[in-house]
Amino acid sequence: MPTDFFTANHDMLDGALAAIAHRGYWTPFPESPSPRVYGESAQEEGRAAFARHRNSDFMPDQQSARRVGEEVSPYGDALGVRYPHIAAPDLVARSEAALGQWRDAGPRVWVGVALEALKRLNRRSMEIAHAVQHTTGQGFMMAFQAGGPHAQDRGLEAVAYAWQAMQCVPAEVQWEKPQGKHDPIRMAKRFTIVPRGVALVIGCATFPTWNGYPGLFASLATGNTVIVKPHPGATLPLAITVQILRDVLAEAGQDPDTVLLAAHEARDDMPARLALDPAVRLIDFTGSSEHGNWLETHARQAQVYTEKAGVNQVIIDSVHDIKSVARNLAFSFALYSGQMCTAPQNIYVPRGGIASDDGHLAFDEVAAALAQAVEKLIADPARAVEITGAIQSGSVLQRIDQARALGLPVLCDSRPLAHPAFPQARTRTPLLLKADAKTDRDVILREWFGPIVFVVATDSTDDSIALAAQTVRERGALTLACYTTDDAVARQARRAAERSGVALSLNLCGPVFVNQTAAYSDYHGTGANPAANAALSDAAYVSNRFRVVQTRWHV
Amino acid sequence: MPTDFFTANHDMLDGALAAIAHRGYWTPFPESPSPRVYGESAQEEGRAAFARHRNSDFMPDQQSARRVGEEVSPYGDALGVRYPHIAAPDLVARSEAALGQWRDAGPRVWVGVALEALKRLNRRSMEIAHAVQHTTGQGFMMAFQAGGPHAQDRGLEAVAYAWQAMQCVPAEVQWEKPQGKHDPIRMAKRFTIVPRGVALVIGCATFPTWNGYPGLFASLATGNTVIVKPHPGATLPLAITVQILRDVLAEAGQDPDTVLLAAHEARDDMPARLALDPAVRLIDFTGSSEHGNWLETHARQAQVYTEKAGVNQVIIDSVHDIKSVARNLAFSFALYSGQMCTAPQNIYVPRGGIASDDGHLAFDEVAAALAQAVEKLIADPARAVEITGAIQSGSVLQRIDQARALGLPVLCDSRPLAHPAFPQARTRTPLLLKADAKTDRDVILREWFGPIVFVVATDSTDDSIALAAQTVRERGALTLACYTTDDAVARQARRAAERSGVALSLNLCGPVFVNQTAAYSDYHGTGANPAANAALSDAAYVSNRFRVVQTRWHV
Repeated sequence: MPTDFFTANHDMLDGALAAIAHRGYWTPFPESPSPRVYGESAQEEGRAAFARHRNSDFMPDQQSARRVGEEVSPYGDALGVRYPHIAAPDLVARSEAALGQWRDAGPRVWVGVALEALKRLNRRSMEIAHAVQHTTGQGFMMAFQAGGPHAQDRGLEAVAYAWQAMQCVPAEVQWEKPQGKHDPIRMAKRFTIVPRGVALVIGCATFPTWNGYPGLFASLATGNTVIVKPHPGATLPLAITVQILRDVLAEAGQDPDTVLLAAHEARDDMPARLALDPAVRLIDFTGSSEHGNWLETHARQAQVYTEKAGVNQVIIDSVHDIKSVARNLAFSFALYSGQMCTAPQNIYVPRGGIASDDGHLAFDEVAAALAQAVEKLIADPARAVEITGAIQSGSVLQRIDQARALGLPVLCDSRPLAHPAFPQARTRTPLLLKADAKTDRDVILREWFGPIVFVVATDSTDDSIALAAQTVRERGALTLACYTTDDAVARQARRAAERSGVALSLNLCGPVFVNQTAAYSDYHGTGANPAANAALSDAAYVSNRFRVVQTRWHV
Repeated sequence: MPTDFFTANHDMLDGALAAIAHRGYWTPFPESPSPRVYGESAQEEGRAAFARHRNSDFMPDQQSARRVGEEVSPYGDALGVRYPHIAAPDLVARSEAALGQWRDAGPRVWVGVALEALKRLNRRSMEIAHAVQHTTGQGFMMAFQAGGPHAQDRGLEAVAYAWQAMQCVPAEVQWEKPQGKHDPIRMAKRFTIVPRGVALVIGCATFPTWNGYPGLFASLATGNTVIVKPHPGATLPLAITVQILRDVLAEAGQDPDTVLLAAHEARDDMPARLALDPAVRLIDFTGSSEHGNWLETHARQAQVYTEKAGVNQVIIDSVHDIKSVARNLAFSFALYSGQMCTAPQNIYVPRGGIASDDGHLAFDEVAAALAQAVEKLIADPARAVEITGAIQSGSVLQRIDQARALGLPVLCDSRPLAHPAFPQARTRTPLLLKADAKTDRDVILREWFGPIVFVVATDSTDDSIALAAQTVRERGALTLACYTTDDAVARQARRAAERSGVALSLNLCGPVFVNQTAAYSDYHGTGANPAANAALSDAAYVSNRFRVVQTRWHV
């Protein structure tokens, strides 16, 4: 008798359903890695589990002729994990073969399996944290939180939306149409939720789980089989995830191939082959605009959900206390060395300066305050590396050099930090450059993914807001922040954000940062500007992953 | 003080919200044109209003330099209505100019205006019935029901889904994250529903209101401005609709240009220009697969919802009473001369015949029963023309000739019917041809839009079901019917329908026909096969027409 995972996890689903309705704070997945929360032995077990994966054959149950694996930790060593390699057509054929049983299982099984897997993922957050750290380069705390509980939250959020959408469709109804003095016409109607087919999830190198779970769980919970294709540089976190899902599927009496891992080498054309396969009907992608736009243009047989690149911006109009503003922003610049799709890049400050509670501040004083806050944050390398983590990819290092070569005045230079635990770690602090909205427009309108920040002189706050809105519309953005003590400016910024379609954070000075969003409450992306064609998560994100087929007959 | 149409129509919205949840029978728009329902003078007023439109300048308030209009009634005369012609870029510019105020008005105003317009449309159902009859060729009763109350139902259904989707997003919330012994982090968050932008509705020549209202009202009720581009041969029904909407908008204190009419001549390239305009972000289309596929391929800046062509099929496995089956199907063949996207085309009958309560029936006996039922239905031309209506387009007449020229055995020939009221009416009865699934596959897998039916010999019911499913997957279909007295066959047909993605009607023998669907209960289309990429209506149909933009700040 297969386990009823829906009943077992019903409370967690109810909690998530309530949370997406009230959008207040809630989570079943504690973000503290404390032994009091996850257990005294959790840290050591997680470390040991990660160590066992290294230099081993992963997923023996997903049979394949050969193995691939080329992950190198941004902290130094090659991981040596060898994953099964299966050709794209074979992956699709196996996924299609699993689809028949999975589609017949119905929403309770789909959602039950998803919930159980999320619960088990949570228990393995320590192991996943190490896997995330040593593929993405994130510091351990971020790797734990963003790669573990916060990613699980985003997955559960998607499952809740999926269940909510499917629950709106009654399974069977009676339809009775009055006919005046005659007997009414009576019909019975049955409505069946059917999946779209095979779904593909294309993971990214920086947040494999956080960005991968929403699409994975949304597609799975609506009856689709899923092929998970991680980035070749960040495969392990999603491979562990797939393994857990396959275990849960087997216990539920389902075919483990309902979820498959598509590991591949960097130069393999597997991603394109999978994406263009006629049987692949859903694609979730996180990555570059170039690849995302390619998918949207060419993978026409599928619904394609993309999160691409953008230019995130901060408008500084006026402040109470420049130091607390600078402290908050400096953390956002340094966090994971700006390798977040939500990290701020352009900081707009009127060239005539701004008002503060301590009097007028010249542009250069604001710029200097930002630079000083960064310097202070990174003053202790041992502490700083826990914030910056390591650089995921060599292209980010090159980009820092390119930015430095622009010849703009350097407010704060980027430099390596000595990592006490990992001497080989590829670390970099933020590079702050001074720019001008008039003369450097081409530069600042490009995305500079990495720890690269431009403090940009504008004509006025009106100019800052107009430039921000135009940039959102033309280049896309995931975040916009505004600092102002003037309610009218705040309203103006909100109006510009709503018209250009980007989430706005006002006056963040405390422990909430513009590059962080909270599941069940903050939407990640809006789907209303070029940075993403969907938001994580909402009804639009799930409701097109299934269809309804009805049968009617007289009774 | 502008009128609060939301409060005024709240009961109707509540009724619709309940109906889409229980999917039982419900409507606020009576389908009987009886004077007891619509008023003693309604018929005469509707006739007079239609007469006044003829040979007149329509919509004086939508200014334009020149006028166009080339509608000719399938019942004889040119209508002579002259509509304002505005170039595509000017239409888009006017729609964009209206967008600012409309987006700020918010969901209550958007939905209120939509509800009020639907209520007023209902009151003018007689006038619209004449307009629909004399553009599409439908018989008066169908023009009244499908063009009036049933179309209004589909519009209201879409508004209800839109409201439901928008209501799931709270307007403003408090978010409070516990911090152990410290004070919690408190934030306020505001969530604003924002439209996608300018929406385009491309109407069809056969059901301008029924197929046009869902997209029109779904886009309008989610804050988008709408350009309504009717078919040049069936402009008046949508022109009246646009005029009513503009009146309601003005009374609500909104810009009437929130809804614009895009009338054009048949050879004008306006449709393509509108569809490709970068400002057009939503497109709803009903029409040929060729045009629908073109839109999906080229109008990449927009969300495109299409209802295209398909091959609708009937599987006859076994019957209680062949006469009642044939009577039901004959009506579906004759109704509006098969010019419905839901009309059955291929009737699959095992070549060895079928079982019935009266004993075994040979294939030819089944075919003959169908032909006899058609002959009986059309025996009285004066009565028959009320069912068949008239042929909308010359291409349908040509298609009947092409079908006849295939050389297949004729079971029942197509012929004109004398119309007592309109001697010039272009009428045709159904053409029934005998075909074989083995030898005539290429023929029957094509869509033959019009009163053209193939009674197709198959190897067995298994063969019929497999052929039907394959046809749905490859060619698309909006309807599938199955007649069987065997529960196992019914289950098999349902499984095939669910796997190929088409709605199934079982054993329709009474006053419900396979080509008719009831709003709030039956989905029209599934979005799961090539005939349509969306269903009328469901959450997926509305939830991507708006986005949510949030602002958060510390409190």
